[in-house]
Amino acid sequence: MTEVIPPQSGVAFELKAGQRLTVIDPMGQQVADMVAFNAVDVAEVISSGRTFDYASKIYLSTGDVLYSNRSREMLTIVEDEVGRHDFLLAPCSAEMFRKLYGHTEPHKGCFGNLRDALEPFGVDPDAIPTAFNVFMNVPVNGQTGTLTVEPPLSKAGDSTVFRAEMDVIIGLTACSAGMSNNFKFKPIHYRIDG
Amino acid sequence: MTEVIPPQSGVAFELKAGQRLTVIDPMGQQVADMVAFNAVDVAEVISSGRTFDYASKIYLSTGDVLYSNRSREMLTIVEDEVGRHDFLLAPCSAEMFRKLYGHTEPHKGCFGNLRDALEPFGVDPDAIPTAFNVFMNVPVNGQTGTLTVEPPLSKAGDSTVFRAEMDVIIGLTACSAGMSNNFKFKPIHYRIDG
Repeated sequence: MTEVIPPQSGVAFELKAGQRLTVIDPMGQQVADMVAFNAVDVAEVISSGRTFDYASKIYLSTGDVLYSNRSREMLTIVEDEVGRHDFLLAPCSAEMFRKLYGHTEPHKGCFGNLRDALEPFGVDPDAIPTAFNVFMNVPVNGQTGTLTVEPPLSKAGDSTVFRAEMDVIIGLTACSAGMSNNFKFKPIHYRIDG
Repeated sequence: MTEVIPPQSGVAFELKAGQRLTVIDPMGQQVADMVAFNAVDVAEVISSGRTFDYASKIYLSTGDVLYSNRSREMLTIVEDEVGRHDFLLAPCSAEMFRKLYGHTEPHKGCFGNLRDALEPFGVDPDAIPTAFNVFMNVPVNGQTGTLTVEPPLSKAGDSTVFRAEMDVIIGLTACSAGMSNNFKFKPIHYRIDG
């Protein structure tokens, strides 16, 4: 059964080891910020720093593993119709919208949505890590190190599939940052199989 | 007064707002993993994800600010004789030495050294973030996203200076990973002024 995350909102749910999570971009050019915590000990969490080190790359796709801060496998990308995601940037937040967009009454952003959705699972907001930003397109200039946030490469209906390597709590959003989604707020769909 | 961090070890200390920390590579081609926590609430910690977003780049040098997970300024790079540091990779650890180097009786690494040095300050090991790796040279291929760990650009006596923007607890190491320091374990020196 396909679940809907309405625009500018987020959810959290458990994914059992071996289950597959399909993240779908129903309209195209939308981003889903995803975080994962060990379901029995939420102090263990996905880590961009560990993942980049073990993968020896910053762009991840089919076959790549998302590692925890304890160097254990949490999720594997098993199918990927898009091929470009971001694991550099923290979730958008009210503070980010103030600093980078100049908003005076900012939205709570993916960070606020993850904070609220993960609260029942005992996750401290300060422990929400840099998210794996599904479909987010952030090219890096290898010479200068500069990065830009570009429209996602995802077309309507494209999806990426993750297999859980341990029981995890997933936080997942329909991103609230205009720069990430070409300035149209859209839903994200997802499905759990297995 | 210049302090010495012996090879393959680490320290932690408080740096008051406005004080300057000079990190010195006395022999050249050595790396110092650095983390920072709010001294009055160690749940606030440097964040590569927030910093990359606000800087719009992954290579940081003079004038750039290291932000916390709460989007506040923690440290500013005020002088930099080297100009290339890494903020992508998590500290080397026993698990990393097993996975990437094939060591069967691995060193505890910068992670173990930071864990031990920060324990008296009440820092949970799981909360040690991706470090700002002073002098570490990790070029990224912007097309493929692949990264390599290369010898540091630092020459004997080179230094980088950080100004504290709030009272912080600093964790600092002389890196234990051969690939980071051209396979020679060397000390790191540091000095606090102000």
